Amino acid sequence: MARQQRERGQRVQAIPLGGLGEIGKNCMAIQEGDHILVVDCGLSFPEEEMLGIDIVIPDFTYLLENRDKVRGLVLTHGHEDHIGAVPYLVRQLEVPVYATRLTLGLVEGKLAEAGLKLPPGSRAVKAGDTVKVGPFAVEFIRVTHSIPDSCALAIRTGAGVIVHTGDFKFDQTPVDGEFADYQRLAELGREGVLALLADSTNAERPGYTPSERVVGKNLDEIFRLARGRILLATFASNVHRIQQAIDSAARWDRKVAVVGRSMENTVEVALKLGYLHVPDGILVDVEELRRFPAQNQVILTTGSQGEPMSALTRMSVNDHKSVEIMPGDTVVFAATPIPGNEKDVARTINNLYRRGAEVIYGREAGVHVSGHGSQEEQKMMINLLRPRFFMPIHGEYRMLVHHARLAQACGIPADSILLGENGTVFEFTPQTAAIAGKVASGQVLVDGLGVGDVGNIVLRDRRQLSQDGILIVVVAIDRETGVIVGGPDIVSRGFVYVRESEGLLEEARDRVKGTLYETLSRRVPEWAVLKSAVRDVLSKYLFEKTRRRPMILPIIMEV
Amino acid sequence: MARQQRERGQRVQAIPLGGLGEIGKNCMAIQEGDHILVVDCGLSFPEEEMLGIDIVIPDFTYLLENRDKVRGLVLTHGHEDHIGAVPYLVRQLEVPVYATRLTLGLVEGKLAEAGLKLPPGSRAVKAGDTVKVGPFAVEFIRVTHSIPDSCALAIRTGAGVIVHTGDFKFDQTPVDGEFADYQRLAELGREGVLALLADSTNAERPGYTPSERVVGKNLDEIFRLARGRILLATFASNVHRIQQAIDSAARWDRKVAVVGRSMENTVEVALKLGYLHVPDGILVDVEELRRFPAQNQVILTTGSQGEPMSALTRMSVNDHKSVEIMPGDTVVFAATPIPGNEKDVARTINNLYRRGAEVIYGREAGVHVSGHGSQEEQKMMINLLRPRFFMPIHGEYRMLVHHARLAQACGIPADSILLGENGTVFEFTPQTAAIAGKVASGQVLVDGLGVGDVGNIVLRDRRQLSQDGILIVVVAIDRETGVIVGGPDIVSRGFVYVRESEGLLEEARDRVKGTLYETLSRRVPEWAVLKSAVRDVLSKYLFEKTRRRPMILPIIMEV
Repeated sequence: MARQQRERGQRVQAIPLGGLGEIGKNCMAIQEGDHILVVDCGLSFPEEEMLGIDIVIPDFTYLLENRDKVRGLVLTHGHEDHIGAVPYLVRQLEVPVYATRLTLGLVEGKLAEAGLKLPPGSRAVKAGDTVKVGPFAVEFIRVTHSIPDSCALAIRTGAGVIVHTGDFKFDQTPVDGEFADYQRLAELGREGVLALLADSTNAERPGYTPSERVVGKNLDEIFRLARGRILLATFASNVHRIQQAIDSAARWDRKVAVVGRSMENTVEVALKLGYLHVPDGILVDVEELRRFPAQNQVILTTGSQGEPMSALTRMSVNDHKSVEIMPGDTVVFAATPIPGNEKDVARTINNLYRRGAEVIYGREAGVHVSGHGSQEEQKMMINLLRPRFFMPIHGEYRMLVHHARLAQACGIPADSILLGENGTVFEFTPQTAAIAGKVASGQVLVDGLGVGDVGNIVLRDRRQLSQDGILIVVVAIDRETGVIVGGPDIVSRGFVYVRESEGLLEEARDRVKGTLYETLSRRVPEWAVLKSAVRDVLSKYLFEKTRRRPMILPIIMEV
Repeated sequence: MARQQRERGQRVQAIPLGGLGEIGKNCMAIQEGDHILVVDCGLSFPEEEMLGIDIVIPDFTYLLENRDKVRGLVLTHGHEDHIGAVPYLVRQLEVPVYATRLTLGLVEGKLAEAGLKLPPGSRAVKAGDTVKVGPFAVEFIRVTHSIPDSCALAIRTGAGVIVHTGDFKFDQTPVDGEFADYQRLAELGREGVLALLADSTNAERPGYTPSERVVGKNLDEIFRLARGRILLATFASNVHRIQQAIDSAARWDRKVAVVGRSMENTVEVALKLGYLHVPDGILVDVEELRRFPAQNQVILTTGSQGEPMSALTRMSVNDHKSVEIMPGDTVVFAATPIPGNEKDVARTINNLYRRGAEVIYGREAGVHVSGHGSQEEQKMMINLLRPRFFMPIHGEYRMLVHHARLAQACGIPADSILLGENGTVFEFTPQTAAIAGKVASGQVLVDGLGVGDVGNIVLRDRRQLSQDGILIVVVAIDRETGVIVGGPDIVSRGFVYVRESEGLLEEARDRVKGTLYETLSRRVPEWAVLKSAVRDVLSKYLFEKTRRRPMILPIIMEV
């Protein structure tokens, strides 16, 4: 064994390309010599200051520069932050994809939307399976999470076993009866684990995360008591919760319609692949649902995050094509606002109350639990595996710090804990672990069809435009004589309401005119000099009058 | 008494101009015949979609249209959401201001910044005082809140006593020893209260809000244990908390420097007026503080909300002129993120960890308590006063709904509870209460020096500019012949990174050119027709190529 390891080379690198120091776009490269295995390929949502950006994906430069070495992509589960960037990678790099059936089914849908197919060699695996990817033997180990068919990975490398938890909680009463494979994790712990790469999302949260069953119980109580229609908003991918809602609907004699594209998609895939079990006749079209009395209706819907274009948000302002909120309705938010969405969620709740609905939301209601393990579960994972080295992944920097402290509390020495960020190269041998460099990493912004074509300059411009708008000064100058033959004209957008600010813009024009004539009277200057003079006089004048700094764009037209 | 009331007219209106259906810009007009009393005059902070807006103030149209009737402005306490818009009102309407000393001191500072003074007739009052404002006798009743000198108001009107709670909690162990005046509230309850207008901020929160002393105790423990420098970020106006921090500093032999303009202001005013008690030699300049060992330093600072320009945020990215964060520092966030600020706060915490500081934050840390009473305190207020009518104020719509339910639980009949929003006219007689109309109300946006000049059109433009930028098409046309003599030129900002998109813009220019020549070849059209043709061809082409919709601005220059 030792000899074989030496032959294969005992150096292995773990290189996070996303998910460290952030929530989202999880992506980890595991490299041994000329072989790279990629674990997960997710997206994240834009920060507030990334104006106009649709999604953010990892920077794949390192993988593309080493394209001949990339042997395969394994996916731990089917959430957007683990699979959302697969089409963007696959378009550039045809690498076989390995994942459990539900995950692969969701990926196939994504690829199809992008006009792509699963690359050759891709295949579905079952929890418990081991796939060979280059020199790596990758074993899929069942864990529990807020989407079925989630796995941790035990990756056998030349330096030892690396365990990647994926996202996990230890739900002791999983809705689908599929327990985390404690036995296998414990066996690995006994055999010896070189490094544990573990989900840090809830590292700030003491105790245990409650079982998804708790939500089911509370939902059932709501279904039992509600006298009118029920609208239930939750994450589109939470198949367990959708299952529990459907079960309660069946129990309390209600029909169910699904509204909202992403939830319709998940339900379709989950039904087709057998992850969702619906009694005959329960699931109906939303138009058909209307024919039943209110107390026999349930609508499962998207919009639990108050997303402006989502079904529930539209309903809350009476702008949905087929559903109108009315007094007697009970709307359940079976979700916690993701940080950044708090105000949108609150606004939707307020509007639902304004329309006379009863709204059930918030921690006290007990209709949401996290899909991520809290501190005690994170410690349990560490203690089941007793790794030699520990590396917190999946989390903002403070979460990684807290997770590192938990590991220390479990007896992992501080110098065996690796705290890094995206792009950090962590290098392992059977005995050692160290930071061994840095590779390109970062965020690639996707705006419409453009991938990475919106960078800092464009964003800086959008920011300035968004704050104070733009003033455009156009002047036509005879290219021979340098004489002004048209303009200057000033056009503004997003700066002031023009009808109320005629005097201001009139005066601005006069000042520009004065500057132009004065500058031109001396000698015909470089246009750049002229533009800069216009910009100076205008920005000074406007700031003085308005305390605003619109973008000023002088355009000189040679005629 | 009955006769006197009849003479004065028994109809009284309460007209909220801000603070109902929202958090912030609290402002309430109480009107009896030709007499208006204004209670509070606050600002709120812009919603995310109000691009470029600095602050939001109430629409004062109703007050300005009735300027001859406005007799006075009474302020319940000195928070921005109760006094922040005073300069904007006073500039247009010179109305005497009545408030307790600290509140008035803070208002004076605000007015001075705006080049204004307190209007004639203004004066400071003490809790327990009654001032005559037109026909109204306004009694100031001490309550506890997160700023000293906070009061509720008992307003004697021709229809009966209206009690306005201001913002309040029932802190049973107030830091300054100034208890809420339970006795006076109870007396009023016995005498008979016509209507209670009560703070709804925490109507969703069960139980009691802990005393500010709890924070003091936990802070003291942090001060006792910290081995290095302590940085404490909290709300600039929380004088009680600043007092407790200073007390702990003195106890554990630390010097204190205050960093951040708004906190420096509050401390200065509170010191001058005697609301803050600082042992000699404790308070030093930040430059002087440096000369002491780290374990003898405390910095009180702004930035507890992760505000981008605040002192602590700058420190967290090593961009503050006088303070650098280093390992060994303990940074305490003695504040909860205000909804909407969660991500900014998280980012600051992450950056502080990156710089090696220890950070204490979050609910578990026990270093923040709300200034608003929870459900049990809200019920206590209702039960002390036993009003005939109840009107929830100060809160988003769902909070008003929950507060109304609490009142019902306390035995106020549902039809004696008035649920309304800004602009609703509530009319009271000694026996009745009803909604009696609607007045102008809403939000006035302040951007730089402009008050209300940024409206929906400007915001819509800013939004479009922020999402996909702008393309400007300039063409010079001979006004006599209709022949193109210059251009078309295309300039873009915030759309694509031009160097990488030359082909796209080149092709766009060709298409515009084609359209221009074709349109002009037939006959010289209205410029509007020409512009619209340019806009159509360009927006179609760009959306097809990029899936983006930049603003397209054709400018035709006649030469």
